[in-house]
Amino acid sequence: MTYCLALRLDEGLIFLADTRTNAGVDNIGVYRKLHVLRPAPDRLFVLQSAGNLATTQEVLDRIDRDLAHPGNGENLATVNHLFEAALYIGRLGQEVCQSHAVGLGGSSAGTASFILGGQITGERPEILLVYPEGNYIRASDTRPFLQIGETKYGKFMLELGVHARVDLETAVKVALSSMLSTARANLSVGPPYDLAVYHNGSIDLVEHRIEEDSAYLRQLQDVWVHHLTEALHGLPPIPPEASPD
Amino acid sequence: MTYCLALRLDEGLIFLADTRTNAGVDNIGVYRKLHVLRPAPDRLFVLQSAGNLATTQEVLDRIDRDLAHPGNGENLATVNHLFEAALYIGRLGQEVCQSHAVGLGGSSAGTASFILGGQITGERPEILLVYPEGNYIRASDTRPFLQIGETKYGKFMLELGVHARVDLETAVKVALSSMLSTARANLSVGPPYDLAVYHNGSIDLVEHRIEEDSAYLRQLQDVWVHHLTEALHGLPPIPPEASPD
Repeated sequence: MTYCLALRLDEGLIFLADTRTNAGVDNIGVYRKLHVLRPAPDRLFVLQSAGNLATTQEVLDRIDRDLAHPGNGENLATVNHLFEAALYIGRLGQEVCQSHAVGLGGSSAGTASFILGGQITGERPEILLVYPEGNYIRASDTRPFLQIGETKYGKFMLELGVHARVDLETAVKVALSSMLSTARANLSVGPPYDLAVYHNGSIDLVEHRIEEDSAYLRQLQDVWVHHLTEALHGLPPIPPEASPD
Repeated sequence: MTYCLALRLDEGLIFLADTRTNAGVDNIGVYRKLHVLRPAPDRLFVLQSAGNLATTQEVLDRIDRDLAHPGNGENLATVNHLFEAALYIGRLGQEVCQSHAVGLGGSSAGTASFILGGQITGERPEILLVYPEGNYIRASDTRPFLQIGETKYGKFMLELGVHARVDLETAVKVALSSMLSTARANLSVGPPYDLAVYHNGSIDLVEHRIEEDSAYLRQLQDVWVHHLTEALHGLPPIPPEASPD
């Protein structure tokens, strides 16, 4: 499994991804799932991946090959809009799956999902979710986040703490909290975590890898447990008609 | 979907179930998923169900028929241990599925899961999860709860707030909080909620239906949102090396 999330805020974009891969619980690995792409000086993309590792790696290799040998086809340096980049990646994902369909025993095997975010100069910074089917959706203004992989355990945190006007520092805290509550519940999501923060208009990225033994993560976890436990104690008494006594 | 949970504490057992059923989002219904069975004076069972509604209803009808016409076969009045009751219900579930396998287009269609809890006098009160395959597991001492249906959204609340020594009143609050966070995230889980509390040794049950417009539910929700928001504000500042600025 995997957990990647991206937030689109008034100030910029935030990307956070775990690094755990597993082919069964007896085969755990650490792979980067957050990839930074700088195909031309006027643009910066972040691509996060979930799903079949072979598919996501081959998609990345094809992206690089198309950039190295441009020819007449589309590539990430030539697309004019972020949604075209999303469609391009969706098409690559489909092509990779189809090329291995016989080996994988069906064209729906080996699928992958992506979150693509970033900015092309002159365009609005955005985040898009690219489905295995090759199409995409945007984040909305009222729900300015996207998730792929194990999305359920960390969703409440995003819904609670994220709206477009949240500042980047708070949003990073919320994103990390969402990641921690997911990793706590699902062993197949785990550290280190890759964090990337994009300031609107910068066409540059602040990147950081947060290791498993990070004192900050431990502190974050402790604060949450403390506050949640306090909340539990502060819950209103059960009305008499529903009381167990 | 469905969300049912059961807790096994030192003082007793708690059962909580939603009532929403759906055959597509255009066909929503309210059905009881928490059933109280008193097949003999020395025993009390609570049966919670998730999965195919036709299967769970037929299982309940077969339970009643076996009790009404005992014959030589097993029934809930004759089993000696709670695990035998679980196996009996597992067998009924399998039989119902198999009897409709052709109509349903395969024996794995129409499956259902159950939580069975309660006490037979002289035995330890217990909760067991009955799988569609007909076998079962118990709750453990370190993880004294079971869930069926949409289990992910509400799990963190149970893990945080429930251990065997929690008193029944606190456990009811935690269970309701777990239900609220699930219903908030998944439209196919919803009120009214059926709550049942069993005091060890009583062979009797306190039952309560909590309606959608319950002032208590609203209060509970408000307190949670208040505390979680406070926790968000109280999160430690991001260390400089991971800071977005």
